[in-house]
Amino acid sequence: MKCSRCGQNAVVALPSHHAGFCGPCFLLFYEKQVRRAIKAHRMLAPGDCVLVALSGGKDSLALAHQLKNLGYKPHGLHVDLGIPDSSLKAREKVEGFCAAEGIPLHITEAREEGLSIPEVKKNVHRPVCSVCGKIKRYLFNKFARNNGYTALATGHNLDDEAARLLANTVRWDTSFLRDVGPVLEARHGFARRIRPLYRLTEFENANYCFLSNIEYNMYPCPYSHGASFNVYKDLMHRLERSQPGKKISFYESFQKQARPCFVRCEEEKGLSLTPCRKCAYPTSEEVCGVCRLKETIQGK
Amino acid sequence: MKCSRCGQNAVVALPSHHAGFCGPCFLLFYEKQVRRAIKAHRMLAPGDCVLVALSGGKDSLALAHQLKNLGYKPHGLHVDLGIPDSSLKAREKVEGFCAAEGIPLHITEAREEGLSIPEVKKNVHRPVCSVCGKIKRYLFNKFARNNGYTALATGHNLDDEAARLLANTVRWDTSFLRDVGPVLEARHGFARRIRPLYRLTEFENANYCFLSNIEYNMYPCPYSHGASFNVYKDLMHRLERSQPGKKISFYESFQKQARPCFVRCEEEKGLSLTPCRKCAYPTSEEVCGVCRLKETIQGK
Repeated sequence: MKCSRCGQNAVVALPSHHAGFCGPCFLLFYEKQVRRAIKAHRMLAPGDCVLVALSGGKDSLALAHQLKNLGYKPHGLHVDLGIPDSSLKAREKVEGFCAAEGIPLHITEAREEGLSIPEVKKNVHRPVCSVCGKIKRYLFNKFARNNGYTALATGHNLDDEAARLLANTVRWDTSFLRDVGPVLEARHGFARRIRPLYRLTEFENANYCFLSNIEYNMYPCPYSHGASFNVYKDLMHRLERSQPGKKISFYESFQKQARPCFVRCEEEKGLSLTPCRKCAYPTSEEVCGVCRLKETIQGK
Repeated sequence: MKCSRCGQNAVVALPSHHAGFCGPCFLLFYEKQVRRAIKAHRMLAPGDCVLVALSGGKDSLALAHQLKNLGYKPHGLHVDLGIPDSSLKAREKVEGFCAAEGIPLHITEAREEGLSIPEVKKNVHRPVCSVCGKIKRYLFNKFARNNGYTALATGHNLDDEAARLLANTVRWDTSFLRDVGPVLEARHGFARRIRPLYRLTEFENANYCFLSNIEYNMYPCPYSHGASFNVYKDLMHRLERSQPGKKISFYESFQKQARPCFVRCEEEKGLSLTPCRKCAYPTSEEVCGVCRLKETIQGK
């Protein structure tokens, strides 16, 4: 296979784009996808102070690296979840990466916030993945808001985004569907959230890291085994295999055609969020879910 | 496995309902599902004059049989598509069934309408399935309207409906999504359309026919090979296998939570249908798609 751009030998095949690329041209393709996402959704403006959520995996490190290459001056935030062995490995990768790239790094320890994931796991009787996700969003948001960042960037990739959209679609939960998108504007005490990698797949992010010599954490979380989310990822992969390009068109046509309908519907319900009595995080209850979780853990 | 209702040996396992049934109890279960669909969506009222579209397959024959058992007085309409061998077999099954059940049967020959499917296939350059579906809807609608039927019932099953919903969802075509549902009220020259089997799967309809001694046409259409629709059926089956009950909840939560949002959005666009200049069928163009197709065929 020849590179679609320069005609040299290709090293990365991308059936979804009916293309293949050599190493240098793949990096240009990758940059173009990120630029396109940022431009199309007005994600960042000059002078924006962007905080990147860094888990240590391929997606988040690729994102920080690419944002820096594009001339932004990202800061990193890593949440140390306190999972034995696994969290240590992740943190080391993040620290190594930020030191090498000269990216200022902040670390929040979930344990210090009373939210260490092994403790949480003992106290919740549902799959821990969704609770862990909620805690991370909470801590990222808190840090971004308290430190004046104008955007919080996460490494959500196309596989994540399309699978999450499908999962929410299967339930037709319009309050979640309203919020599936590459940009969530600041509102009700949420920091502005952006997903510059939404056009890129896990495979493309892994290739970007490989070709950019970024060492990332490859160990899956020991708690994620059999998460139901994987069913939706698998369904989307099957659809993409049978109709290349469907994953991105599913996600983008949702943004254009359906999301505005759900936004309208939800606005009419008029449910508004108010600050949590304990921590001021936006919530539809008096005390937010994370504070209630803390209470459960401390009560034991 | 024991029957969930009477404790005898079960002959049909229904994981989606966490149940299994013996023959007689399965027929009760089946009847209950149809009654529930009719009642929940106010599909039929006493005195309604219902026309059932009969292809000769398991779904349509099961539907006519069940409607008759429930005390309605259905008439049948079969469209003879003119496909060599295949259409003859289908027609024989429909004629045999209606004679045995005492159901008045009407037959429309696609050929006489200038729409024989082999001719159509020669003249269209896209998969013939969608065109064939359009022609059948056209002819069913025409007959129902011209003969004063107050409802046109079709044997669409849960597998069809969920897969069609998924296919339309993946494209997020809100004008199609608006119309995915168990009832489409009469409007703009469309007869009222109802789908009393939307809660029942192909497997359940096949079992119903088997247990009710209904001989149906089992031959697949020779033109349907590799239809892209099958991809969506397969995805829905996979989802159902991993989360039993998901197919019906996907369809029903759509009706309740999402469809109203799409109806609203489409109403605001204000696109209205007008009668076709040639045949009065509702269309967004001057001449409807079926009349344009006829012109193409006759022009050759």
